[in-house]
Amino acid sequence: MARLVRRAKKKLGLKPGAVVYVGEKRTEPVEITVIDYDQTEFREMKAKSVEDCFPFRDSSTITWINVTGLHDVEVIEKLGAHFNLSSLVLEDIVNTGHRPKMEETESILFIMLKMLYTKTENHDIISEHVGVVFGKNFVISFQEKPGDVLDVVRERIKRTVPRVRFTTAGYLAYALIDAIVDHYFVVLESIGERVESLEEELISNPVSRHLDTIHSLKRELIYIRRAVWPLREVVGGLERTETDLISDDLSPYLRDLYEHTIQVIDTVETFRDMVSGLLDIYLSSVSNRMNEVMKVLTIIATIFIPLGFLAGVYGMNFDTSVSPFNLPELGMRYGYPAFWLAVLIVGGGLFWFFRRKHWL
Amino acid sequence: MARLVRRAKKKLGLKPGAVVYVGEKRTEPVEITVIDYDQTEFREMKAKSVEDCFPFRDSSTITWINVTGLHDVEVIEKLGAHFNLSSLVLEDIVNTGHRPKMEETESILFIMLKMLYTKTENHDIISEHVGVVFGKNFVISFQEKPGDVLDVVRERIKRTVPRVRFTTAGYLAYALIDAIVDHYFVVLESIGERVESLEEELISNPVSRHLDTIHSLKRELIYIRRAVWPLREVVGGLERTETDLISDDLSPYLRDLYEHTIQVIDTVETFRDMVSGLLDIYLSSVSNRMNEVMKVLTIIATIFIPLGFLAGVYGMNFDTSVSPFNLPELGMRYGYPAFWLAVLIVGGGLFWFFRRKHWL
Amino acid sequence: MARLVRRAKKKLGLKPGAVVYVGEKRTEPVEITVIDYDQTEFREMKAKSVEDCFPFRDSSTITWINVTGLHDVEVIEKLGAHFNLSSLVLEDIVNTGHRPKMEETESILFIMLKMLYTKTENHDIISEHVGVVFGKNFVISFQEKPGDVLDVVRERIKRTVPRVRFTTAGYLAYALIDAIVDHYFVVLESIGERVESLEEELISNPVSRHLDTIHSLKRELIYIRRAVWPLREVVGGLERTETDLISDDLSPYLRDLYEHTIQVIDTVETFRDMVSGLLDIYLSSVSNRMNEVMKVLTIIATIFIPLGFLAGVYGMNFDTSVSPFNLPELGMRYGYPAFWLAVLIVGGGLFWFFRRKHWL
Amino acid sequence: MARLVRRAKKKLGLKPGAVVYVGEKRTEPVEITVIDYDQTEFREMKAKSVEDCFPFRDSSTITWINVTGLHDVEVIEKLGAHFNLSSLVLEDIVNTGHRPKMEETESILFIMLKMLYTKTENHDIISEHVGVVFGKNFVISFQEKPGDVLDVVRERIKRTVPRVRFTTAGYLAYALIDAIVDHYFVVLESIGERVESLEEELISNPVSRHLDTIHSLKRELIYIRRAVWPLREVVGGLERTETDLISDDLSPYLRDLYEHTIQVIDTVETFRDMVSGLLDIYLSSVSNRMNEVMKVLTIIATIFIPLGFLAGVYGMNFDTSVSPFNLPELGMRYGYPAFWLAVLIVGGGLFWFFRRKHWL
Amino acid sequence: MARLVRRAKKKLGLKPGAVVYVGEKRTEPVEITVIDYDQTEFREMKAKSVEDCFPFRDSSTITWINVTGLHDVEVIEKLGAHFNLSSLVLEDIVNTGHRPKMEETESILFIMLKMLYTKTENHDIISEHVGVVFGKNFVISFQEKPGDVLDVVRERIKRTVPRVRFTTAGYLAYALIDAIVDHYFVVLESIGERVESLEEELISNPVSRHLDTIHSLKRELIYIRRAVWPLREVVGGLERTETDLISDDLSPYLRDLYEHTIQVIDTVETFRDMVSGLLDIYLSSVSNRMNEVMKVLTIIATIFIPLGFLAGVYGMNFDTSVSPFNLPELGMRYGYPAFWLAVLIVGGGLFWFFRRKHWL
Repeated sequence: MARLVRRAKKKLGLKPGAVVYVGEKRTEPVEITVIDYDQTEFREMKAKSVEDCFPFRDSSTITWINVTGLHDVEVIEKLGAHFNLSSLVLEDIVNTGHRPKMEETESILFIMLKMLYTKTENHDIISEHVGVVFGKNFVISFQEKPGDVLDVVRERIKRTVPRVRFTTAGYLAYALIDAIVDHYFVVLESIGERVESLEEELISNPVSRHLDTIHSLKRELIYIRRAVWPLREVVGGLERTETDLISDDLSPYLRDLYEHTIQVIDTVETFRDMVSGLLDIYLSSVSNRMNEVMKVLTIIATIFIPLGFLAGVYGMNFDTSVSPFNLPELGMRYGYPAFWLAVLIVGGGLFWFFRRKHWL
Repeated sequence: MARLVRRAKKKLGLKPGAVVYVGEKRTEPVEITVIDYDQTEFREMKAKSVEDCFPFRDSSTITWINVTGLHDVEVIEKLGAHFNLSSLVLEDIVNTGHRPKMEETESILFIMLKMLYTKTENHDIISEHVGVVFGKNFVISFQEKPGDVLDVVRERIKRTVPRVRFTTAGYLAYALIDAIVDHYFVVLESIGERVESLEEELISNPVSRHLDTIHSLKRELIYIRRAVWPLREVVGGLERTETDLISDDLSPYLRDLYEHTIQVIDTVETFRDMVSGLLDIYLSSVSNRMNEVMKVLTIIATIFIPLGFLAGVYGMNFDTSVSPFNLPELGMRYGYPAFWLAVLIVGGGLFWFFRRKHWL
Repeated sequence: MARLVRRAKKKLGLKPGAVVYVGEKRTEPVEITVIDYDQTEFREMKAKSVEDCFPFRDSSTITWINVTGLHDVEVIEKLGAHFNLSSLVLEDIVNTGHRPKMEETESILFIMLKMLYTKTENHDIISEHVGVVFGKNFVISFQEKPGDVLDVVRERIKRTVPRVRFTTAGYLAYALIDAIVDHYFVVLESIGERVESLEEELISNPVSRHLDTIHSLKRELIYIRRAVWPLREVVGGLERTETDLISDDLSPYLRDLYEHTIQVIDTVETFRDMVSGLLDIYLSSVSNRMNEVMKVLTIIATIFIPLGFLAGVYGMNFDTSVSPFNLPELGMRYGYPAFWLAVLIVGGGLFWFFRRKHWL
Repeated sequence: MARLVRRAKKKLGLKPGAVVYVGEKRTEPVEITVIDYDQTEFREMKAKSVEDCFPFRDSSTITWINVTGLHDVEVIEKLGAHFNLSSLVLEDIVNTGHRPKMEETESILFIMLKMLYTKTENHDIISEHVGVVFGKNFVISFQEKPGDVLDVVRERIKRTVPRVRFTTAGYLAYALIDAIVDHYFVVLESIGERVESLEEELISNPVSRHLDTIHSLKRELIYIRRAVWPLREVVGGLERTETDLISDDLSPYLRDLYEHTIQVIDTVETFRDMVSGLLDIYLSSVSNRMNEVMKVLTIIATIFIPLGFLAGVYGMNFDTSVSPFNLPELGMRYGYPAFWLAVLIVGGGLFWFFRRKHWL
Repeated sequence: MARLVRRAKKKLGLKPGAVVYVGEKRTEPVEITVIDYDQTEFREMKAKSVEDCFPFRDSSTITWINVTGLHDVEVIEKLGAHFNLSSLVLEDIVNTGHRPKMEETESILFIMLKMLYTKTENHDIISEHVGVVFGKNFVISFQEKPGDVLDVVRERIKRTVPRVRFTTAGYLAYALIDAIVDHYFVVLESIGERVESLEEELISNPVSRHLDTIHSLKRELIYIRRAVWPLREVVGGLERTETDLISDDLSPYLRDLYEHTIQVIDTVETFRDMVSGLLDIYLSSVSNRMNEVMKVLTIIATIFIPLGFLAGVYGMNFDTSVSPFNLPELGMRYGYPAFWLAVLIVGGGLFWFFRRKHWL
């Protein structure tokens, strides 16, 4: 998972709006894919340089420019300059530590959110910073690493012919955000499964390793919550905004998106509740177990320590020849059998005592 | 209980509004019951196919179409197409993981909520996804499995002659929701009884199995809460909406419904409070018990370990013939009685000590 | 205390507005007292039947009809029919599980709240469902059981001559509610005393029975909270309502009542805080005590187990005649005194060790 | 500290507005001080009877009447009658259990709040009920006991010549409230010091007496919180009120007062946070300590119990003369040294074991 | 870290608006730096006395006066008198305990906030009280101690030529606040690193010193929270204010600042969540460890105490010559091997028992 605070050291002392990448160091070149289409035509290309994208700004077709890699600030600044993105917007795009937000200027709308997905090999949740900017007929999406969350949208555009809905940039941008939010459910489902299997294991046999699992679940939920809570406001803002970029027939879709966001938040909160419940179970069962251990110790010690004393008494070497008061038991005919009788009586008495206390 | 997150995997990559069932797999055919009535007439039939219901849309009588089974998406899409339900509404109807919501279009009102009931054989609480759509003169209700929660409404319609109130679709829809909310109280009463009996048991004799009961109560309350909280907003919205579908004389009923919803929420929160209180009691009594076990161990060990040492001393084999300093006690006339006297003094002293500490 | 959820089973499947009593079973007849007065005259009577009350509806004097017992639904329905109470109002009056609420129609105002009082013999808190309905010149109060909470109002009416303020039904209704709220303070004072005495006991000598007391206090506060929270809204609504039934000169009294309600809520919350604090104290002192028990055990065992081993060594029977390596200590002149010296050194060393660890 | 609930028993059954003192019983006579001044003149006197104050109501100078002692209800009623205080206001003045509030009538403003101060000899916090009433040219303050919190205001009036600001009753009333709020900081500072010194002690050496300190801090913060929270609303209301009694140039002072109130609340909340943190530390260190005690016990017992068994074995009396299988070790030449070797090996092995477990 | 409450004792009894320094005692002289510039010129000087700054009030250039040291109240009062700062503003400037706030008069805007930074040698967080006042063409900043947080702004002014944005006092003031808020991220990053390294250590090997670290992190987060929460309101107020001092083109910068403030708050809350999670881990692992210790003790004691008893039995001295019932085992040919067989059976049985209980 990404660090929580990243912004500080590199930026200190720069003017506001300075475009500084603060995420993990990366060296591969920034990859730019351009998808250009109208109702019937569809064209996809990899841009060799930023300048390749420039003509699309003023074309009448819809263009989706996907930028993978935020570490090459220069590329992003060039793109920003051509597409009229203010320096404050560019600063936010590369500031991978920023929380989700929406910003609106006269000609563009800018949305920033977190993309969440799990790696298949383990349960690690990856959080990625994503920026979506759109104007009248173009959408630019910025993501940190190559990944397939947004691919489903490309496939849908390709497949759908004629493209009725996709012919506004607003709908395309909505489809991208919707794909990202849909992926939250995949992540949540994976967490849900872990919570449920952990719960079953905990009830049957709690071991100390479960504590780590509980803690890492807790931590992941804190991260997801941080990513998702501000999104509600963002999507709500998108619904209420009065810009021309969002046409009226988009509003049921945005409401739907809003409800999905709420449901994600809701589920995260429920999971948090459940995970604290699991911690309670874990702690209680550790208590229970210690209690049981104590009981066994107490039963054994309580029975055998007094008996050991008794055996010790008859192992003493008082001189029986000096006086008849010294250990007369040792010379009795049934001394030893009487000793065992005493042992049985003491043992039985304690057994009865423990029964009464419900320890056995 | 149903899974918490269900939506994700099957849906990924589909367009918004794709109607995909995400609940448990089911194979039985979808069952459609049609009840058609006016003030005096009452007709009830099982529809053989979806098309059987179509004529009722435009009849002047009130028609209640009850669809049992959400897994046959085709049936629901046909019905939806005929009754002008948008694809987003249909998506929600079959998405059994969705939270309660209300949606309003020009010609219909759509309410989605959770039906809760307990199976009689055990205490399991079943949560079922229910959709209620109504227009000018028809109500369509969608439920996952056959069940008798809504039957009371059918009975009431049948019995009431002449049907004054039931002659609007709004009142019929209200009656269905009211029946569902009324059932929440049955579920809550069953939980309440379990809470109270658990409380009594816990105070008299807490055992480790109670921990599981506490946990499962907690978990069920989390689920119910999730089902009920959004309902407040839904019913509140129903009260405030300005559609013609809800006539003015319905408003005292809706206010009543709203109050019942509040009371359900209230009760759930109270139960949550009480169940955490029970966990506290359980944990405290485990602590108390361990304390008691420790005391017994300590009393026995503290008395007999020193005495055992004393017996050990007089079991030593120092050669008394070498010097008068070696174990002279062994040769004394009253050595052994003196030993027992020492035992009584040490034992009595410790007894007094434990009394003073309130351990006995 | 009353059950938390009562409404469910008896009511299921009835139409909204069905008047069904859900409280404890009672058999005694419903008792109706009528107090009729104007500025100077005062008349009090026990009604033999409901019909006895009917003439007072249209008389110009102020009439207070007090109905004791909600279990005879028929009586209440008759009264309701004559005084124009809607079936939803009647349903609420007999539904003893309902939360406090206010309802307003054209001609009457209906308030529902909980009456709390303690039985003198023990600390049990009784919660009773009370309904107050008033119109232009009559007030009807409904209570579950005979009791003296409202008697103080009757006394005040009787005593006050001429009755300036009491000549509106609004003031009379206010006086009844005020008397009920005043009684909350009696209950709270009794709880406050129990909290404070519990606190003193806990600090001097916490025993396991205190846990039950803490729990029952917690539980009672949950109940009271449930009864009082919604009342704030009710009284606030009464203050804001614009009906003619509440004259302007009543408003300082209603504000006063509102403040008392707030103070009750405030006090309940403070008590809840304090009671959780008491649980913390209890648990901590159980911990402390166990710690102390452990220390005693450890000190005794740690000193005497090694010494016991030493005594055991010199109780061994190695054959000293075989070689000078076998237990040569036994044949030494000062062997036994040296043994005691070793005992003192080991004991002293451990004593010093425990001192350093602050265990002694 | 004062009791939490006081109002109940004495008042039950009285009409609203009945002036009943509910605080501690007091017998000394009520003391009334009158300070009368204008821009240049200053006069201070002790009133022999209430009637002495009456002429000041209509004088053109500003008059501050300070009443010490709320137990003589008659005095307060006379004063109230002359200065037009309604019976509800008088009721609140003597009801020492009432929470802070503000009330406004045509001719006067009435503020009620709690005065907090510490006794120098110990840390006890005294909470006192204070009422401040002011009209066009008079301020009447009511306090329970003689004390010096308000004296600083008298001094300031005396010293300031010419008295520009003090020539409105509003400013004088503000100055009194400000002096009381300023005193909250003294109390908070004293609590802050106790919190910080407790923290240091707890970290170095937590003992069971600290638990009582934590508890009493918690309790005091609950009391202070109760006194301060409603004050925010009171001061806020004072700022927003539109009466002529508060001139416009007072508003920056009221804003300042409001901010101080917020800061007091803020500090109380921070202290509550810190005190819960202290409880956590205390409990954790008790746990730690018990853990350490357990370790010592376990190490000693685990080493010496097996060794004791070994010594016991060679103390057995099997008859070596019967067969060579019976305790042949006893007759060996190096039997005893071999025993000690075994002791060293077992001891060393366990030492290594404990090291690996980080217990040593 | 600074004390929590400082205001009280020194101020008691003074009039509101009395300018009293309440921070740590300091003796070095107050240092005043003046930076005066316009689009092209830049001048920096150290003022020898307060009067040196006076001419800049009415110059047309932008002037930034930085006052380091709040303890010389006289200097601050002189400056305040010349620049029209009211006595209430001056009081707040030197009251180092005051919470962040904004105040607006006709000619100036006054912002008060906390500067946070860490000393490099250790992790101590320093909180400093900072006041920023600005008018049409001047900004005065007040800070407690010399430090380099604001230096970055000076450098930026110096470097930027021509200074387009910096030619309004509003932008300069914004830049100062932005520099302070940027520094919060440095502090948070340092805390974040400590949280993460603590987390790793805790999971691998929790020791009692970690408890102190957790506690000090908790405490620091309480302090930071206290400093940052009110800032949200301050910056929000700055955004909404309608004064001419803040030009319209500043608003995207203020929105950006507001978002950073929100992010700081957000991060602090996340850290608080994580630190409580760490406490839970710590406590659980202490529990786990004690459980493990108990198990070892129980296993050893449970095996060897009964065996010790057995050895004790055969160490008894019953007179075998008196009767054949007395310890006949001692004279048996295979008595001793049989004893060891018994030992192995008991040991093996207990081993099996512990396996079944999952203790081994």
